[in-house]
Amino acid sequence: MNNKIKIGIVGYGNLGRGVESAVTRSSDMELVALLTRRDPATIQTATGIPTYGMDAAASLVGRVDVMILCGGSANDLPTQTPDMAKYFNVIDSFDTHAKIPEHYAKVDEVCKQSGTLGIISVGWDPGLFSLMRCLGQAILPDGADYTFWGKGVSQGHSDAIRRIDGVADARQYTIPVESALQRVRNGENPTLTTREKHTRECFVVAKEGADLAAIEREIVTMPNYFADYDTTVHFITREELDRDHKGIPHGGKVFRCGATGLDGQTKHVMEFGLTLESNPEFTSSVLVAYARAAYRLSKEGQNGCKTVLDIPPAYLHPASGETLRATLL
Amino acid sequence: MNNKIKIGIVGYGNLGRGVESAVTRSSDMELVALLTRRDPATIQTATGIPTYGMDAAASLVGRVDVMILCGGSANDLPTQTPDMAKYFNVIDSFDTHAKIPEHYAKVDEVCKQSGTLGIISVGWDPGLFSLMRCLGQAILPDGADYTFWGKGVSQGHSDAIRRIDGVADARQYTIPVESALQRVRNGENPTLTTREKHTRECFVVAKEGADLAAIEREIVTMPNYFADYDTTVHFITREELDRDHKGIPHGGKVFRCGATGLDGQTKHVMEFGLTLESNPEFTSSVLVAYARAAYRLSKEGQNGCKTVLDIPPAYLHPASGETLRATLL
Repeated sequence: MNNKIKIGIVGYGNLGRGVESAVTRSSDMELVALLTRRDPATIQTATGIPTYGMDAAASLVGRVDVMILCGGSANDLPTQTPDMAKYFNVIDSFDTHAKIPEHYAKVDEVCKQSGTLGIISVGWDPGLFSLMRCLGQAILPDGADYTFWGKGVSQGHSDAIRRIDGVADARQYTIPVESALQRVRNGENPTLTTREKHTRECFVVAKEGADLAAIEREIVTMPNYFADYDTTVHFITREELDRDHKGIPHGGKVFRCGATGLDGQTKHVMEFGLTLESNPEFTSSVLVAYARAAYRLSKEGQNGCKTVLDIPPAYLHPASGETLRATLL
Repeated sequence: MNNKIKIGIVGYGNLGRGVESAVTRSSDMELVALLTRRDPATIQTATGIPTYGMDAAASLVGRVDVMILCGGSANDLPTQTPDMAKYFNVIDSFDTHAKIPEHYAKVDEVCKQSGTLGIISVGWDPGLFSLMRCLGQAILPDGADYTFWGKGVSQGHSDAIRRIDGVADARQYTIPVESALQRVRNGENPTLTTREKHTRECFVVAKEGADLAAIEREIVTMPNYFADYDTTVHFITREELDRDHKGIPHGGKVFRCGATGLDGQTKHVMEFGLTLESNPEFTSSVLVAYARAAYRLSKEGQNGCKTVLDIPPAYLHPASGETLRATLL
């Protein structure tokens, strides 16, 4: 036994693979278990992590310090995070914004009963962007928040296009409108409609003989997904899609634009931006940093459910407080 | 007595006035005392804060929840912060980077003896920029940090010019080099010299009959301050200085550029930027948000010295954890 933080992963999709590489590159951590709903014998991980079925969880108590949940918010995390919190400290990236309070309550109850610590909704939005909104509102109470997403691939919008009759495959990019960004950056505090903030660009591979005009019409008029945006549709070949649109880049910007002074006339703009070549790899890296914090807080005797808003930044960093004060301040 | 957090201010310069207006605009706080080294009778504050001499500190115990130190790092804070920490929770903006560990140790000792809580080196650099460096290094351990300052007024450089023979007044702006910013933003991870990162622009009012060429030469060759930079000098009139250069704008950007993936080939850029019309008013707003955190942590029974790296973000925001989870995540 060494002193490294022992990390388990639940689920081996893009996020699970990202956690695998982020932990491998963190010298104070090691991977000890992968739990999967598939047949463990069929999974070959990149670094050879011991793989188990989901029912092995109880048998791993004492061997895993923090379990990182890498499933989806719709079907996996609402049950998996509380289930795993019975046995382990847990981290998840639950991102169904409207259901976060309900998920929090469920995880908090299990954690408190079990003496474990959970940090939910970790990643960049929710996650780092939430943290920035908190800082911005606290420092500039008299102001406005702005969030822009992209340029990046929206999985949900890509899936919506794939469900259209005659579509073989598709990739959708969300793109912030540069002039809107600039107005916010200038401190104009504009009121922006959905259409004024983002455009949507779609790359579609049609099935042979499909009605392209009908596909395009169905995309640009699709309620909730595209109707409120200026949407561009490009029909491309399977080869072009595979060659030019294989990555999962994303990113975004959060602004707090506020005023100070007794007369409220002095303007300030706080801006936080991310440009990510791989959305799941960056999200995984955030999960792993918060796993370090969960481990440390748990060692101090804390338990219950937390979010990024509850974690002191120093707990995320491997160096000591003394080193951080000498080098970062 | 109401439930508001009772704030005291030490020192009534630009920072003290900024704290006055920030507290006035915070509905959960009120100003109860201004301490000054000047004759209190000569000070008329904008909002009519009761004003005392420095020796009144002991008599204010129990009436001030958090004392915000608004003096300078060179001569005031090294003694004032520990002195005030004997009686009150304290916040300061100590920014002599190399001496922060020493200042921390001194304040920590007094706070622990007195059961008070101090948060030092609060502001934006050190402060928010330190927090961003901590987040960036923790999330992208394989990467590089970049900090750019400006466009903004450097008080120290302006003062250095004013000490030159023949100079009546001066204002110096630090300006980041746009092409360097762009290279960092592109993820090139460049190695940048001092000269490649910032330029310096000086607006100088010369005394009548002064040797302008000699002044310019003395500025651009001044060691430490200007010799390592591309420096531009403009001679202007007193009227122009007062008309165009009265403000104290500042700002800057912190980047973390890192790579993820088992092969370390996936690039990400995190960027945090500030554009501030008034450096002291924004810094004051940060001090006031951290005063809220100091009050809450102290109420929970914590004491000793802390920095921005030790404070959970939710403690800065007036809303409850429940509200924050529902609105920010």
